[in-house]
Parts: sequence; structure tokens; C-alpha cells
Amino acid sequence: MELELKTSNEIIETSKKYNLHSWSNQGAINPKVMAKADGIYFWDGDGKRYYDMSSQLVNLNIGYNNKKVIKAIQNQAEKLAFASPAYAIDVRSQLAKMVVELAPDNMGKVFFTLGGADANENAIKIAKMITGRHKIFSRYRSYHGATYGAANLTGEPRRYACEPGIPGFVKFFDPYTYRAPFEFHSEEEGTQYYLSQLREQIIYEGRDSVAAIFLETITGSNGIIIPPKGYLQGVRDICDEFGILMVCDEVMTGWGRTGEWFGVNNYNVKPDIITFAKGVTCGYAPIGGVLVSKEIGAFFDNNFLSCGLTYSAHPIGCAAGIATIEVYKEEGLLEKTKESGILLGQLLEDIKEKHPCVGDVRYIGLFGGIELVKDKATKEPIVEYGKDPEKVMKTILGMLIEKGFSTYTHENVIIVAPPLIITDEELKEAMTIMDEVLVEVDKMI
Amino acid sequence: MELELKTSNEIIETSKKYNLHSWSNQGAINPKVMAKADGIYFWDGDGKRYYDMSSQLVNLNIGYNNKKVIKAIQNQAEKLAFASPAYAIDVRSQLAKMVVELAPDNMGKVFFTLGGADANENAIKIAKMITGRHKIFSRYRSYHGATYGAANLTGEPRRYACEPGIPGFVKFFDPYTYRAPFEFHSEEEGTQYYLSQLREQIIYEGRDSVAAIFLETITGSNGIIIPPKGYLQGVRDICDEFGILMVCDEVMTGWGRTGEWFGVNNYNVKPDIITFAKGVTCGYAPIGGVLVSKEIGAFFDNNFLSCGLTYSAHPIGCAAGIATIEVYKEEGLLEKTKESGILLGQLLEDIKEKHPCVGDVRYIGLFGGIELVKDKATKEPIVEYGKDPEKVMKTILGMLIEKGFSTYTHENVIIVAPPLIITDEELKEAMTIMDEVLVEVDKMI
Ligand SMILES: Cc1ncc(COP(=O)(O)O)c(C=O)c1O
Ligand SMILES: Cc1ncc(COP(=O)(O)O)c(C=O)c1O
Repeated sequence: MELELKTSNEIIETSKKYNLHSWSNQGAINPKVMAKADGIYFWDGDGKRYYDMSSQLVNLNIGYNNKKVIKAIQNQAEKLAFASPAYAIDVRSQLAKMVVELAPDNMGKVFFTLGGADANENAIKIAKMITGRHKIFSRYRSYHGATYGAANLTGEPRRYACEPGIPGFVKFFDPYTYRAPFEFHSEEEGTQYYLSQLREQIIYEGRDSVAAIFLETITGSNGIIIPPKGYLQGVRDICDEFGILMVCDEVMTGWGRTGEWFGVNNYNVKPDIITFAKGVTCGYAPIGGVLVSKEIGAFFDNNFLSCGLTYSAHPIGCAAGIATIEVYKEEGLLEKTKESGILLGQLLEDIKEKHPCVGDVRYIGLFGGIELVKDKATKEPIVEYGKDPEKVMKTILGMLIEKGFSTYTHENVIIVAPPLIITDEELKEAMTIMDEVLVEVDKMI
Repeated sequence: MELELKTSNEIIETSKKYNLHSWSNQGAINPKVMAKADGIYFWDGDGKRYYDMSSQLVNLNIGYNNKKVIKAIQNQAEKLAFASPAYAIDVRSQLAKMVVELAPDNMGKVFFTLGGADANENAIKIAKMITGRHKIFSRYRSYHGATYGAANLTGEPRRYACEPGIPGFVKFFDPYTYRAPFEFHSEEEGTQYYLSQLREQIIYEGRDSVAAIFLETITGSNGIIIPPKGYLQGVRDICDEFGILMVCDEVMTGWGRTGEWFGVNNYNVKPDIITFAKGVTCGYAPIGGVLVSKEIGAFFDNNFLSCGLTYSAHPIGCAAGIATIEVYKEEGLLEKTKESGILLGQLLEDIKEKHPCVGDVRYIGLFGGIELVKDKATKEPIVEYGKDPEKVMKTILGMLIEKGFSTYTHENVIIVAPPLIITDEELKEAMTIMDEVLVEVDKMI
């Protein structure tokens, strides 16, 4: 195979000419070349090195250039690159078994997709088939993907492109205690408030018409919102009360990100359905999936599963998944993440204390967010929701990247979610950059 | 990496226990193992060989085990397995350029997805963003994918799982002249009829409210329905009249299947958007995409493209795509398909003439279908639409597979779409099996 584009400049110009780039005005972008990558680092076309402090899109949990996963992909490509989903093949069976065995013990089967959006799409369909109901609850501060079903689950502005919306999709508020409508006296009081609001909304929507409640176990891109004590169990109880399926979107929180295989393990909660993607292969090859409880699995023994995609359970993705899971285990990444998470928490708390521009920091495992404000006391966000005409956040992100700290921002929050293999030393170095940039941000507000 | 499942039996049992299988009652399936595959053949767990006469799901156009594509995947896995869509990388730029250059000359840019469904999802969104309108036309006999948006485009029963439907999605009838409401005196008369119906429906739906008309250039799974003379140009003209975007779904018809790079090339028609997947990598690695006209591309220079997915333009998929396109070229597969298509046409016509159970055969390139009837004169289909309680079609398919002819059926149609590398000899051998099975079907009706 002959690659005709040699220089960074050719690659960039060709990309600008022929590629449509996600989530942007094409005229406003100037893509960087990723020339090389290893561990937690990548290098651009000029040889400049970056700490990848968001694991790309919170998917590269094991970092770049993992030889074991690469080898698994290479071997599977040679052995059998493709077989339609109708066939049983060794890696397809084995990955399914491994995923189910690592999941909460009520889980029984898995339907493999290609990414997070189609995992959620299939979860919606499954929830409707199981319950015979059509309403779907999900939260305002959420991102579940950009295809129609997933985008209608999504609460944030990226859903608007899929409106007029699908009938029966209803939104409720996240337990975003930092910006609650009033001050809670305790975490429990916050939990109580959000659960009672949810319960009331379900009753008003029709107690027998809700098929499922979808929620990110921990809200990811929309602000790393950690559920307050008892919240997830409370949602579980409400689901049980009304015969609603609880669906946890673990596309970001799954696969070690929080120091557990799945985010729900931190809260001892057992959803009926878990959707996942990203960390299962870390993006080395695309795979996503829908984990369903044993009960749901059994339902489809005698009922038609109206789901399918040509590349469901792609052999190369399955091989990559098996190898990736082995990497998590062999390198003890869950344990390591719990430990690094303690350090990350300390560093974030230091930053919050030091910088007037930091209103809140939230974190669990290596999943952290820094919420920027104009004023710590009033909590006025540094940019309004859904509005940043002066590109304040873009400027701040640009300063970070310029100093070699690669990540992304969303609304007024900076994501900090490095590969789980990061060392303490590296984490401290990178967070020093963050600190330096926040000094500048302090001056801006 | 240690594979723990050794025997076919273990692989099958594990699959039945842990994998949810597409489009089926899980209790009713007994998946075959695909143990090995090469060229147009694959072997099951018992060492039995099959002609793959559907190219799996009409995607394996270049056949199994193509060394060049395997090598490309292996090299890319080693070089850079993942970079988020924001980065420019050599294979991502180059595949975009190659795809645009092979497409009709009005095309300007491409947005890469993972498969066919998400290609259509993004095409819907793009069409709405461009036109500011929300109604979407598509056809009853169609399959466009199984996620919400794609399933709402889909006309056949697989859409029902995504209902209640998205507001504004409207269906019209395919130019299925074999089952027209009355006898046409000429092909042109048929074309005229279907176009006038479509035009009237648009006016009744609101002439300024339709964003796009989606259609498979040649209806695939729903019966290999070849557009009658002038039909596609007629749709183009109607689109122009009302400012509607014409979107051709080339997920099956693209990439050599009909003897051309894209199905539309057979009709000299230039849609505004083309969606594709399958043949671009033949499934060796998942990739799909949305090709947009230069005009649409330019629109997004100053307008926000509200589309994205973590694995958009996956590096390994891009590398596989480049290599696959080179294979089409180097092996002269388009020319070859045109020639084999003539032979396939003759063989299908012979079969139609010989067998009372064959009502119609339709074909273009190596894309063929055999429509089974109870009675040639009345055209009564061998099974009713959406109903086959006695599993007649499953029985017929079982007979074919038993004799080593692997394919799939849909409603009363058997698909014949072998890898484009099939030799005349192999095509004749395989169609002899078809002939033998149809002798049995003749006795059933
Ligand atoms: C929580 C969550 N769900 C779903 C998705 C969608 O996944 P994908 O981009 O693979 O479609 C994302 C992507 O960021 C996500 O963060
Ligand atoms: C014409 C057409 N469009 C779209 C699709 C959906 O593609 P995928 O299965 O990759 O989602 C298919 C799949 O068979 C198809 O035939």
C-alpha cells in the first residue's frame, strides 16, 4: 500500500479539503497531525510532545501503543478478519463470556455493537421490547451519542440536531448538587430532593408508561457529576417500584476509569442493562455493547430480538477486547487507578483551594473535572450554558495544549482523565501545567 | 493472548450462553462456527465448505483472506491504532481523498462513520441542517439500518422496533414494477406512474417542508429492485424542483457490486449525498461514511456540523479502506463484475424459465435476486409479506446451505451476490446447486 501524503502540511491540507470534521465549523479548524504516540504521550507533526490528559475521548485507558493489543489485532486480521454476526467464532464467544463475567452478577448476555451511540440505540430498543412501554427517561446534563435514538437520550445541546424529537423521550435533572436550586444541609438531603423530583415526574408522565431510565453512572462530558450518597440505589428502588428498567451508560465510566470494572461497582448497584464501548478495546478497534440481565436474556429465548448491524461483534474488535481486558488484569490497572485517583483528588483539591477561577473539582478514580467560575461565592460560571461567544473556554484549552497538556473542555468544565497507566510523577508534572494555566485564568475573571 | 475455547462445540455453546444474536429468537438459533475462510469460500466447524453466495451480508466484495488488506490493517495497528477524529492522520486524509475522487464529480467531502446505519443517521442530520426542513422521505421496501434514525428511514418491518416513529418521516412506494397495481405498457410508463405518485405525495406533505428523499439506488435486501428507465433522473428532477436533497444509500450498491464504483454511475445521476459502508473495507475493519456535494461541504465552512462519534474515521478502518480500493483497481474488479454479471444474468434467466416457483429474477452486476411465487401467472408470493408461519423460506434457505450454497433470504426473495472475485466456473457450479434446490421448491408449491 502506497501512502501518498508525506508531509504534515500535505496531510493537514488534504484533511481540510476532503474530511468533514466532527462538531465544528469546517472553516474554523486547523487540525493537528498526530504523528506518533506511545504510553500517555503523543507527538504532533512538529515533533512536539503532549501529555494526553483526556485519554483522547476518555477511551485510551491503557495508553497508546500497547503491544499486546496490537498483536491481537494483527493475529485476528490474519486468522479471520470478518464473519457475519450469525456465526459463532472463538473470539466472539470468548469476549462475551469475559464481559459478562466481569459485570455485576445479575448480568447474563451481551449484544455487541461498534461504539457507544449504537450501544445506547440497542438498549432503548431492548427496553421497549421487554416492557412493551414506550417512554424513556434520561437526564439534561448527559451525552449518550449522536445518532437519533442516542441523541434523543442526550440532554445537552448536541441533541438539537435530532429534533423534532422521538415521541416519549423525557428529560429529568441530574443530581448536580453544586448548582442545586437551594442549599442542602447534607448529601442525603440532596439525594432525597432529586429522587423525589424524579419519582413525581414519573407519576406525572404515567406510572405504567416508562420503559427505562437511562443515566450515565457518573455524568461524564457534561461535568463529571458524581452521584450523591444513595442516589443510584434510590433510582434502582424507583425503577423497581414502577417496573422500569434501569440502564446505566458506562461508555465512559466502564473499564477501569473509576478504579472498578464498571462505575456501578462503586455504588453496589445492579442495573438491568449496562451499555459500554471506549475502554473495552480502548479504541484500538471499534467495539461497544449492551449487557443485559439474565432475566432480559431469557426473555429473548422466545421473543424476537429486533436488533442487528453488519459489524456486530466484529472479529478484530473482539480480539482487541480480549487482549485489552487481559492488559487491565495483568497490569493491575484497577488497583493502580484507585491509588492514582487519590493523588489526582489531592492535586485537584489543591487547585481548587488556590485558584479563584475554580468553583468546584469533582473526581473518582482517574475521572476528574474542574469547573470554572467567574466568582467562587456566587458560582457564576465562566461561560453561560450553551453560550461562549468570546470563546473563553477555547482560549483556556488552547493555553493548556500550547503547554503540552492535551484534553478537552465542555461548557465551563475541563476534563482530566489521563490513561490509567500514568505514573504519579507524570500526573504531578501534567497538573503543574494545569496550575500554571489557571493562574492566567484567574487574571481573566 | 490465550484463547480458552478450543472445540467447535465449546465455541457454539459459549456463544449461545453469552452472545445475543441479531434478528432472532435466541432459543431458536444454532449458530455455525466459521472456522476458516478463503476467497469465495468458508468452512464450518466440521470442515464443510460453502460457496459464500451473499458475500456474507453483501459486504465481502473482494472475498476472504485478502493479504493486501490484512497487511494494511497489521501495519496501521502497529503504526497508530487510534487517534480521535480531531486529528489529521495520513490514512484518514488519504482515504477521504480517494473516496471523493472515485465518487460522482459533484462530490466534495466525506464524513466517516463505522457502518451503514450511522452513515444514514448522519446524512439525515446533514440534510436537515442544510435545508432547515424536517420531513424525510424514504421507501417502504427498504432497509437503511437499525438505529433510530436509520430504522425510521427503513420501510420494512425491522422499523417497527423504533416506533412510535420520529415526526416527519414519510414513506413512499418503490418502483416495484413486477408487483405494480396495474400492468404498464412500457418501462417508461411505470417510471412515469411512480414519479407522479411521489411528486403528488410531496405536494400533499408540504412542498417546502421536505429536507431529503432517501433511497437505495437499487433496493437491496428488500428484493433487488432495479429502478426502471429514467426513474432515478426523475427523482433528481423532483428534488431540484422542490429544493429537496437526493440521498442515495449505496451501502450495498457501492464499491463495485454493480460493476461501477457507485450504483448511481449506472444511471448517470448525481445525488447530493451518498451513504456507504460495507464494500469500502469489505468488512475487514468497520467503516462507513457520508459523501456530500461540494455545495454541502462549503455550507459547513461557516456552519456547525453537529455530527460526531468517537470512532469516526478510525485509523485501522481508513488503512483497510485504502488497501481495499487498491485491490478493486489492481484486480480490475469493476470490469470483471460487469462481465460476470452478464453470466449471472443468463443463469438467472435460465432458472426463471425453467422453474414454476420463480416469478421473477432481477440483477445488475453481481447483485441478483430470485423472487419465489406459488404461481407464475397470478404472481402470488410463496410467502405473504411479513408472514411466514410455516417457515417456508427458512426451509428453502436450509436446503441451499445444506448443499453448500450460503446466502440469505428476505421475504420471498433469495439473494445472489457472491464476492466479485468469483470465477465463471465457480458461479456456474454454485448456480447448479440453486437449480437443484429450486427443483425441490417447484414440488412444494
Ligand atoms: C457516556 C457516553 N455515552 C455514549 C457516548 C457515545 O459513544 P460513541 O462516540 O462511541 O458513539 C459517549 C461518547 O463520548 C459517552 O461519553
Ligand atoms: C442499503 C443498506 N443501508 C444500510 C444498511 C445498514 O448498515 P449496517 O448494518 O452497517 O448498519 C444496510 C445493511 O444491510 C443496507 O443494506
